[in-house]
Amino acid sequence: MTKERLTLFDTTLRDGAQTTGVDFSLADKRHIAAMLDDLGLDYIEGGYPGANQTDTAFFSARPKLNHARFAAFGMVKRAGRSVENDPGLATLFGADADTITFVAKAWDYHVRVALGVSLEENLEAIRLSIEAALAHKREVILDCEHFFDGFKADPFYALNVARTAFEAGARWIVLCDTNGGALPHEVEAIVAVVRDRVPGAYLGIHAHNDTDNAVANSLAAVRAGVRQIHGALNGLGERCGNANLTSIIPTLLLKPDFADAFEIGVSLEKLKSLTKVSHTLDELLNRAPNRHAPYVGASAFATKAGIHASAVVKDPKTYEHVSPEAVGNKRRLLVSDQAGKSNILAELERIGVKLEKNDARVGRLLDEVKQKEALGYAYEGADASFELLARRVLGEVPDFFDVERFRVDVERRHNAQGDLVTVSEAVVKVRIDGETSISAAEGEGPVNALDLALRKDLGKYQPFIEDLNLVDYRVRVFQGGTDAVTRVLVEFTDSSGENWSTVGVSANIIDASFQALTDAITFRLLKSGA
Amino acid sequence: MTKERLTLFDTTLRDGAQTTGVDFSLADKRHIAAMLDDLGLDYIEGGYPGANQTDTAFFSARPKLNHARFAAFGMVKRAGRSVENDPGLATLFGADADTITFVAKAWDYHVRVALGVSLEENLEAIRLSIEAALAHKREVILDCEHFFDGFKADPFYALNVARTAFEAGARWIVLCDTNGGALPHEVEAIVAVVRDRVPGAYLGIHAHNDTDNAVANSLAAVRAGVRQIHGALNGLGERCGNANLTSIIPTLLLKPDFADAFEIGVSLEKLKSLTKVSHTLDELLNRAPNRHAPYVGASAFATKAGIHASAVVKDPKTYEHVSPEAVGNKRRLLVSDQAGKSNILAELERIGVKLEKNDARVGRLLDEVKQKEALGYAYEGADASFELLARRVLGEVPDFFDVERFRVDVERRHNAQGDLVTVSEAVVKVRIDGETSISAAEGEGPVNALDLALRKDLGKYQPFIEDLNLVDYRVRVFQGGTDAVTRVLVEFTDSSGENWSTVGVSANIIDASFQALTDAITFRLLKSGA
Repeated sequence: MTKERLTLFDTTLRDGAQTTGVDFSLADKRHIAAMLDDLGLDYIEGGYPGANQTDTAFFSARPKLNHARFAAFGMVKRAGRSVENDPGLATLFGADADTITFVAKAWDYHVRVALGVSLEENLEAIRLSIEAALAHKREVILDCEHFFDGFKADPFYALNVARTAFEAGARWIVLCDTNGGALPHEVEAIVAVVRDRVPGAYLGIHAHNDTDNAVANSLAAVRAGVRQIHGALNGLGERCGNANLTSIIPTLLLKPDFADAFEIGVSLEKLKSLTKVSHTLDELLNRAPNRHAPYVGASAFATKAGIHASAVVKDPKTYEHVSPEAVGNKRRLLVSDQAGKSNILAELERIGVKLEKNDARVGRLLDEVKQKEALGYAYEGADASFELLARRVLGEVPDFFDVERFRVDVERRHNAQGDLVTVSEAVVKVRIDGETSISAAEGEGPVNALDLALRKDLGKYQPFIEDLNLVDYRVRVFQGGTDAVTRVLVEFTDSSGENWSTVGVSANIIDASFQALTDAITFRLLKSGA
Repeated sequence: MTKERLTLFDTTLRDGAQTTGVDFSLADKRHIAAMLDDLGLDYIEGGYPGANQTDTAFFSARPKLNHARFAAFGMVKRAGRSVENDPGLATLFGADADTITFVAKAWDYHVRVALGVSLEENLEAIRLSIEAALAHKREVILDCEHFFDGFKADPFYALNVARTAFEAGARWIVLCDTNGGALPHEVEAIVAVVRDRVPGAYLGIHAHNDTDNAVANSLAAVRAGVRQIHGALNGLGERCGNANLTSIIPTLLLKPDFADAFEIGVSLEKLKSLTKVSHTLDELLNRAPNRHAPYVGASAFATKAGIHASAVVKDPKTYEHVSPEAVGNKRRLLVSDQAGKSNILAELERIGVKLEKNDARVGRLLDEVKQKEALGYAYEGADASFELLARRVLGEVPDFFDVERFRVDVERRHNAQGDLVTVSEAVVKVRIDGETSISAAEGEGPVNALDLALRKDLGKYQPFIEDLNLVDYRVRVFQGGTDAVTRVLVEFTDSSGENWSTVGVSANIIDASFQALTDAITFRLLKSGA
């Protein structure tokens, strides 16, 4: 059976730029475009030239792409203005792009009220804009804004918009759920009507996640006849985001009902880079990756001790809907409270340690983990501390350095100008190879001061820890009042982008933080072969 | 047209407890159960009695629920063991619950390989367990584990499991997509077959989000005939989470295709508390709320400056798929909005302050709140700090005491016995009515020391603060590295059992803690008429 081709259109750099808190630099855009191209996406919408400086600059010298077509987004011409005199169109035609994605209104209400023009004038603007773009040798995609709401309000007009674009020569007619409120069964039904009433048109779907159905809406549209999917990596986008391509791509490649019927530009080999691509985007945007993201999240193939854990070890395939390796992710069995030997063994294997089940050290490590967990330690979010614990039991962790004492002072007082200021200072005394050194540092707070003082002078280890960066710090207190135990989780990254997490527990938050900090540094020293 | 009743089954406290990093305390479980009950859910699955101490304790004295049925989860009896001699069943029957949710395997492969019993023995275990539960006067729900994978492998056996449970008297037969790999079109087709082949059975759906389709799978199942939806608040759950009830509930109530056909236990009035419920759960679990969550996320109704913003202001209804107020959320634009004022007025009314909408102080308070929130303050979990802020704007809060300076030292060193010990000491200088006093105290940690020193001598106010007890302390850090801002939430109780929460924000954790502590004491003094 020959497969039909599905086209993937990425709008991470355009609609994704509408995400609250996201602000792409020109360098970000270039980096991401290259990554999307390498992954195998068919179209990369780079932005909206003329709308802001970054986008204008991005389209003045297009990024080098090996496969993908480069698309510029903009509005069709204004009614009452000629094609030649529309500055928006002029900017679009001047943009260095293969394709123009025009957006036009498909909801009669918006045409009349928001645009304040007649329904016929809107159709004419669409027709003339497309013809002009074709004359400029650009391929045209028409985004039909509010298509589904428009269809519900006036199906004939919405269809007229699609038909007008098709007849004017648009290569793709994209049905946009701009508000994100459409449900999968509606999308499927409406797409089927469009397919019948605008025969020959190539249709696309542009879904938003306002009801948590953006992925399902995209898949439903494909089943009904759409052949282009718009979406964004990691589901970036305005409000609740665009359809998440990071979820859609593996489904299209790995689920037989889609994989047997369609082919896409992303290969099974490239799919193995998906987890890394997703995390790299988060890194660039300084966002914490979603642990629970389908396919690529750190927890997507994680099983907590419970009724499933031992069965997963026996036969993972029947407990995982796809193989984690297929998307470049990893299976994780969370070491926790009810951890059994099989969990420990599986975790050891993941960190590259092969032991037999009846090796005495496995039992010792299990006892150690149980004892620590009874004290409040939790290793599920602290891989590096678990690995240190395991390798200590195996006798593989040298005493790199020994902290003889530390002191942290936080003082709030009036300064010479009479302002209230808070100053944090830490002093740390370390012994390395029999020699002691004392370092002091000021910080934003006590933990920051301690971190800086501790890493100020670790003697011969200094080159290994210069590029560390504390990126996350979490605290949880168990039980109430003065008996409380504090658990601190910290996460570090280094300049290569690797990151690792450690845990500390104590009645004293500073002590707990200090444990986590020293574990993080020790882990780094161990890994770097210091 | 009479509407059919859809039943909502919440598994936040059971399957949600499998979420990586989630660790419910008994108090958390009680708090969440009360919240779910108040929201109007039909079933609350409290946990798995016997699996761990918390769950066992939770089922030894059930929480007081006004509407919801309380369900205990557990496995059907083991094959080869009589009902009377199965310790799991004994624990379940001993649990203080209305309903037992049995889980049983519906995939022939798992029965034969994982359980290692015959297909017939598995059916018998299901039948006998259900009959025994009914004899113990429990309602029974059967979770058919791996139902969809099982159906694909051997539809006859999967149907046999459902039919056996139905004939044995299970009230609900729940089709579980345990691996989370099923797609909406498959769920719809398979549910339709079950509905036809097990006529009369009440069917449920239990979906996981491994392909980003858990919500769509649940809705597809309802369209195909299912009448019970299993899910978790905020989509908690193993791996990528369970079907997100926070997304499903508003869709069922606000989208005509569902709202016209079905009724649920959650009222439109209660729906307005959904955003708050969602955020409260995140607060309890010390998780950062997902800004982009459908319906309840901070960005769900946010429009960034761009092609939509001004149009949204003109006519929000045509740009929002539902009204943000319907789910207790807010529209966010880059212009000041009226929604803010009405929120503030509602909050003021809650603390007993009646003001007119155009009272200048309402505007001033709104500005204050916005400024504070921009700095990282969050009042949702800190009622007392909000009340203090409001009453300060109204000029109702006296300067009870003024802290001129404080200092906290934490030192780790070897003591006289050669043991490593950590000592925390705080010194606080306070001015009351023009007189200053200095107090010092040692504590378990810096915050404890500070709390003790601060409350050691507040002069004439001392009688009012003797019975205070710090019962909770939470910390969250925003952004990474040294630019991080720390938010501290503390909760106090007094001897009468009343409790109140306050918030502090600073780059310095000690400063933030200190703000929250002084707010808590000030609130107490204000309330006690000191």
